[in-house]
Amino acid sequence: MQLVHTPSAMATLAQQWREQGKKIALVPTMGWFHEGHLALMRRARQEADQVVVSLFVNPMQFGPHEDLTAYPRDLQRDTELAAGVGVDVLYAPSVQEMYPAGFQTSVRVARLGKGLCGASRPGHFDGVCTVVMKLLHQSCPHLAIFGEKDFQQLAVIRRMALDLNLPVEIIAHPTVREDSGLALSSRNKYLRPDEMEQARCLYRAIVFAREKARAATCALPAKDLCREIQENIEQYEGCKVDFVAIVENDTLENCEAVNENSRLIMAVTINNKVRLIDNASLLSAELL
Amino acid sequence: MQLVHTPSAMATLAQQWREQGKKIALVPTMGWFHEGHLALMRRARQEADQVVVSLFVNPMQFGPHEDLTAYPRDLQRDTELAAGVGVDVLYAPSVQEMYPAGFQTSVRVARLGKGLCGASRPGHFDGVCTVVMKLLHQSCPHLAIFGEKDFQQLAVIRRMALDLNLPVEIIAHPTVREDSGLALSSRNKYLRPDEMEQARCLYRAIVFAREKARAATCALPAKDLCREIQENIEQYEGCKVDFVAIVENDTLENCEAVNENSRLIMAVTINNKVRLIDNASLLSAELL
Repeated sequence: MQLVHTPSAMATLAQQWREQGKKIALVPTMGWFHEGHLALMRRARQEADQVVVSLFVNPMQFGPHEDLTAYPRDLQRDTELAAGVGVDVLYAPSVQEMYPAGFQTSVRVARLGKGLCGASRPGHFDGVCTVVMKLLHQSCPHLAIFGEKDFQQLAVIRRMALDLNLPVEIIAHPTVREDSGLALSSRNKYLRPDEMEQARCLYRAIVFAREKARAATCALPAKDLCREIQENIEQYEGCKVDFVAIVENDTLENCEAVNENSRLIMAVTINNKVRLIDNASLLSAELL
Repeated sequence: MQLVHTPSAMATLAQQWREQGKKIALVPTMGWFHEGHLALMRRARQEADQVVVSLFVNPMQFGPHEDLTAYPRDLQRDTELAAGVGVDVLYAPSVQEMYPAGFQTSVRVARLGKGLCGASRPGHFDGVCTVVMKLLHQSCPHLAIFGEKDFQQLAVIRRMALDLNLPVEIIAHPTVREDSGLALSSRNKYLRPDEMEQARCLYRAIVFAREKARAATCALPAKDLCREIQENIEQYEGCKVDFVAIVENDTLENCEAVNENSRLIMAVTINNKVRLIDNASLLSAELL
């Protein structure tokens, strides 16, 4: 596996592959790999000739009081893990190379990026869109793979790709969970063992909501179910809802009543310290 | 010459050319071709194997009270002119194909797009950046050619390409002028013959400013020269300055004193009706 550190080296390599007719896949990440990331990389390995994994903790998508400096980093560990699943290039550019002096351009997806996590984290999705656009132009992939755990991010990027006619296929990969149901996330590293137990409140809320939705014999008002889910979560000490929403799968607009396209999306803060997100379809056949 | 009307047909064609190793040039236009456009097309013809000229009057870059509906259009005439200089594809998509229902993404170059024309036309450069990004993704060119007449547009697009790592070379082509000195523009069509004469105030102001700058024996304060230029323009009846600025060539920031990198940029309204722009380097060897 090759380690690449500059946008120009990455672009040169991608150009060569393109000229050789190779199919390129990109998996954008912020590192501190877990089984969720590795699943995306294995998927990329199946789909393409050349697999690029980008590793960049993107300052532009962190708010001023968020965990940019605390975010876990270990290039050595990540290099071994990526090499282990057959990645061709681990692309880890520096902040200086990605945002040199004079940088001033941004990409915004207006409505999809506004609510849910966008409301709690203003500017977050502008940062995500901008860096993803840069990474796509640098590595020229035929396809890019994103995890469904960050469901709003996936929707925003799909919309950006469609609206700006990006010649890239956006592929979604299902959330990977621990046996306990907790969705894998690099931020789980912030949790002590007892907090890992608390963090299961998100998964339990999903199971609770799906049971409620499936058991309903008539149209279930989404607002009522959201309130019940919030109560379900906040019955556990230290579990505080940031938001709970039931939205249409594609537009992320609030549902009136739970339907086949309804998705539960939520963010919960554990002990006022770690903000976790999770999501699931309520009535479709999607497996958890 | 082939006429292409949909983004998907354009993308398919570009993909085929790429696979055949052809070099592609894009000349983005809003149509109503004049010698300025034709010069860009001839330049593209020299530089590339396949020349695409896009023709799209982009609603997103017009303000609510601007001349979107009045903007001159004649596809038949433009088709003949483009074919005459050896263009391969005239790409004229519809507004519905470019901005389908649900469209919500935009690209912004923050500082460069804010002053000068950006101040008189809020949102204008967001519209320009967004449509250029779309056209580049649709036609996958190796290079794209822009006229220096729209100097701020050129600077904004250069910055966008750099910041977002677009794998496209941005080429600038000098302004083409009538014998009278008037810069060619599709909007000149709005001028009656006597107004064409009035419109020469922009060129006369450039000549005046260059003479002043060249004659100065010590550092010339840009502010003072701007005031003189404005007076020079407004001595002619019906000629009203929108802005006159002397800025650094790359950053478009105001110069304190006139220097080798200074550029005069201005917008003037003729008879409260037609807004014209022009620009020139003040001290470099650049020809008018």
